[in-house]
Amino acid sequence: MTDAPYPHSQPAFVLVRPQMGQNIGAAARAMLNFGLDRMRLVNPRDGWPNPDAVAMASGAGRVLDAAMVHDTTADAVADCHYVYATTARSRGLTKPIFSPEGAMKDAARRIAAGERVAVLFGPERAGLENDDISIANAIISVPVNPDFPSLNLGQCVLLTGYEWRRQITEVPAMVTELAGSDWPEAHEVEKLAEHYEQRLEDAGFFFPDVKAAHMKRNLRNMWSRMPLTRADVQILHGMMRQMVRWKNRSD
Amino acid sequence: MTDAPYPHSQPAFVLVRPQMGQNIGAAARAMLNFGLDRMRLVNPRDGWPNPDAVAMASGAGRVLDAAMVHDTTADAVADCHYVYATTARSRGLTKPIFSPEGAMKDAARRIAAGERVAVLFGPERAGLENDDISIANAIISVPVNPDFPSLNLGQCVLLTGYEWRRQITEVPAMVTELAGSDWPEAHEVEKLAEHYEQRLEDAGFFFPDVKAAHMKRNLRNMWSRMPLTRADVQILHGMMRQMVRWKNRSD
Repeated sequence: MTDAPYPHSQPAFVLVRPQMGQNIGAAARAMLNFGLDRMRLVNPRDGWPNPDAVAMASGAGRVLDAAMVHDTTADAVADCHYVYATTARSRGLTKPIFSPEGAMKDAARRIAAGERVAVLFGPERAGLENDDISIANAIISVPVNPDFPSLNLGQCVLLTGYEWRRQITEVPAMVTELAGSDWPEAHEVEKLAEHYEQRLEDAGFFFPDVKAAHMKRNLRNMWSRMPLTRADVQILHGMMRQMVRWKNRSD
Repeated sequence: MTDAPYPHSQPAFVLVRPQMGQNIGAAARAMLNFGLDRMRLVNPRDGWPNPDAVAMASGAGRVLDAAMVHDTTADAVADCHYVYATTARSRGLTKPIFSPEGAMKDAARRIAAGERVAVLFGPERAGLENDDISIANAIISVPVNPDFPSLNLGQCVLLTGYEWRRQITEVPAMVTELAGSDWPEAHEVEKLAEHYEQRLEDAGFFFPDVKAAHMKRNLRNMWSRMPLTRADVQILHGMMRQMVRWKNRSD
């Protein structure tokens, strides 16, 4: 039931002995930002349900409504095939250590193969205990500045959720949004270059003669280097036409 | 001066018209987690310095101490060669749109080539205005759940800082931490397999005879599949030796 609407398509995020209700609510918001809605709670300090959590969760209240509550970490992950524990410090346990990216890539592969996976997050102050970590199959370690490692629970949930979404969605590194225009074909840019070259010739811009060829080549190169839209090309034509009109009026 | 200790090696994070002092402090902490300490502020609502910001920044107070304050967004980025604006919504401006990863990869390349770059973050409620965005060369858009996009200022700073650090540090997707042990050589695992096979043979485990070869092969395969450390191998030897001792005592 808690797995709806994506029964086996995402990891469960397990908050182990969370203290402040508002941090549970913030974690629910952080999760839902990245499409995650399977929260499990191990022995929350202030009981459950928690009004502070509800107030902070705001639009993500349904994540809390569906959260399962367990007495122990082992109970919370009993149905899972693979469990990751988030921890800042090295724990002296022989265990695979994943980057957040590596872990969520691994989780996506396991989930696609039909496994159920969970990620453990420790209490605000102390983090996970070694008994919790020894239940996990692997560790997730966020690569923070060693001189200032201060990620809190909500931030750790946020970064892990972000990496999960990155692994399952195709996000291009860069696209250009075209607002009400499209890209010109080469002959349109060529026509613009000719228009400018001709008018600037009339205006005596290509001076002295010995430099004219070089100046013209640089100008051509500038037009082709700029990511002009069709609308930009029209604006540039219009600017030059207006300069000519203005010149003719002042004759 | 504000660029110390990494003069040209990182982007400036520009908070545009931030409202709550505590959010400025949280942004400073989020930055320093990922080694970023060049903050610039555009017209902070409650003036500057701000005691709420200092209280929230905690160990990251030096980021605030070094922050530069400007009247306008244009002033804040006047010395930069390339500027990214973070925004949740499409703005109807023709502009490159980067993923956080793509943007910080691009920024790292530019900075390595000697450029100065900045990232704009909008005020808490409304986000950046189109006048701010038109100053930027490109947009950064975080790929959130379209049904629940609720990233706040601190979260946006955190994710961008995280991606910055990912681009400039080599983080392996997975390593195994070895606590007080190392990996055995093949002959050690072979010896373990022989030890178990011999004792289990004595104990009548490989029964019936017709299945013995198959059972032995499966057992060998199990040992080689498990990521055993040298310490694990010794523990397993010890377990079996103890079982034999126990058997002999009870004779």
